[in-house]
Amino acid sequence: MRREMAEQPEVLARLLSSRIPVDVQRPAGVIIVARGSSDHAAVYGRYLLELATRRPVALAAPSLFTRYGAQTDASGWLVVGVSQSGRTPEIVDVVERLRATGGRAIAITNDEGSPLAEAAETVIGLGAGTEQAVPATKTFSAQMAAFAALAAALGDVPWAEGDLARVPDAVAGVLADGDGIATLAERWAEIHQLVVTARGWLFSAALETALKVRETALVSAQGFSVADFLHGPIAAVDPGAPVLALRADGPAAADVDEAVAALTERGADLQLLPPVDGLPEALAPIAASVRGQQLALELALRKGLDPDAPRGLNKVTITR
Amino acid sequence: MRREMAEQPEVLARLLSSRIPVDVQRPAGVIIVARGSSDHAAVYGRYLLELATRRPVALAAPSLFTRYGAQTDASGWLVVGVSQSGRTPEIVDVVERLRATGGRAIAITNDEGSPLAEAAETVIGLGAGTEQAVPATKTFSAQMAAFAALAAALGDVPWAEGDLARVPDAVAGVLADGDGIATLAERWAEIHQLVVTARGWLFSAALETALKVRETALVSAQGFSVADFLHGPIAAVDPGAPVLALRADGPAAADVDEAVAALTERGADLQLLPPVDGLPEALAPIAASVRGQQLALELALRKGLDPDAPRGLNKVTITR
Repeated sequence: MRREMAEQPEVLARLLSSRIPVDVQRPAGVIIVARGSSDHAAVYGRYLLELATRRPVALAAPSLFTRYGAQTDASGWLVVGVSQSGRTPEIVDVVERLRATGGRAIAITNDEGSPLAEAAETVIGLGAGTEQAVPATKTFSAQMAAFAALAAALGDVPWAEGDLARVPDAVAGVLADGDGIATLAERWAEIHQLVVTARGWLFSAALETALKVRETALVSAQGFSVADFLHGPIAAVDPGAPVLALRADGPAAADVDEAVAALTERGADLQLLPPVDGLPEALAPIAASVRGQQLALELALRKGLDPDAPRGLNKVTITR
Repeated sequence: MRREMAEQPEVLARLLSSRIPVDVQRPAGVIIVARGSSDHAAVYGRYLLELATRRPVALAAPSLFTRYGAQTDASGWLVVGVSQSGRTPEIVDVVERLRATGGRAIAITNDEGSPLAEAAETVIGLGAGTEQAVPATKTFSAQMAAFAALAAALGDVPWAEGDLARVPDAVAGVLADGDGIATLAERWAEIHQLVVTARGWLFSAALETALKVRETALVSAQGFSVADFLHGPIAAVDPGAPVLALRADGPAAADVDEAVAALTERGADLQLLPPVDGLPEALAPIAASVRGQQLALELALRKGLDPDAPRGLNKVTITR
């Protein structure tokens, strides 16, 4: 896992310098089809593609198609299938069904010869090389970057010219600076549960960090939008309960500050994720998710766990 | 909370016998705008409306509009705003913005004079009367029933003629049969965390049950789709860890059975939610969510908590 995490700047640089082979007229809407960690990349992609296309973006409910026979009409829609392996049967199935009704399909996958790639008109290959550790790291950040590049190819994006090319260096900076996370992992070596909260752009990174900590370090971690969290779930936060908040400068910062104040008042064991330098808020989730990987890895090692092979998990999601 | 729970059969009977004043030509798509427990009713509604309209359904990301200035074009779309109080400023704001671009708006709210009702062309009033306990119970099940009635008014629904009218009796049956839940609450009186899992129709009830247990009984509860859960989050389930699975006869039952087998092998403290008699799978979530309310209430009482006023929560969500 550590070795594959270290490959991320190189993978991202390669991906972000390649041309995105997409030529889509203004779609009626966008449907993203994903599951598991790919679904967290999809939450990021959902924000980006809605801004870029100015059309609503839906995250597909796969069971509607594979269990309940939905006849959803996707004519005129852009369909984006996301799977690291490209081999999750259910994802391939849903993309094929939506394409059959007239949707135009793009696959985001690490295997350009996979069934998902074959089911789509256009393939954005992650080019991340083989990923052997069960927790997705380089394929996850590459999926996020693929969404950023796709959004830039489709319309307006909330960053300046040249910002995208600075993502690999920002991620390299995160990887080179592990001290804050190591200290945090030492402090949290015995935790059994964790709340991870953020709002807006960083919400996707909060969800992914919670999942990564959960599956790698076997901590019962849960991600929340700050806006939901403050009006219900926060009730269960006892004094001393560990909470990780993700914050970037921007329009959502005041919401996170409000959560920080409420959590401080409750006596939570609160930590802000060490900030990511040099990226606008809309690109910060890529680097923040790498910070989350660091935390998951360091917590797992302190617990004497093998981060590469969490108990009972397989690499390829096989839901049919 | 117990008194308001007991009112549910009457509230549902009144709501389900009233005419849904909707006349929508086939929409380009559907956007549901909600937050917190209303967002769990929206997950249920999302399945129903996609089957009924045969168009993709998106759940809005409110921060895109209120924090990042999204210019999403909703012309030709159906917009459904969901808020028990109708007074969450952010939800009203997003509905107004989508309507201004040409969306046709329906409000599902318990207050027909609320700002949300005023922002919409059509109002489905829940008619649940004042709800004083902070945890939403009768307004939540009424929101689900409102989505079911709306779907039936818009297109095909996955139940037979007359089934909808049987929901109030099924809920009355659940309320009259609390023994199984009382026994479970006794067994789980000391738990600090809980996983709630389901697939397909019951996924919405799993999310809501986790939230209700979390905010009422202060247990760190988390809801998962079985399909996601088996390929990652299950790793953190230790022997003896409490897990509640929701299962109904139907196409998703085999998936839940697979999860039950995997959890049994791990030695989890597994419980199937007592089944709901007399309803097809697509209507079972309404009654199953009432079972979840029972569990939240009984756990809270055994912990000596006041279920009506969880610490630090307000009744009306005030996110702007």
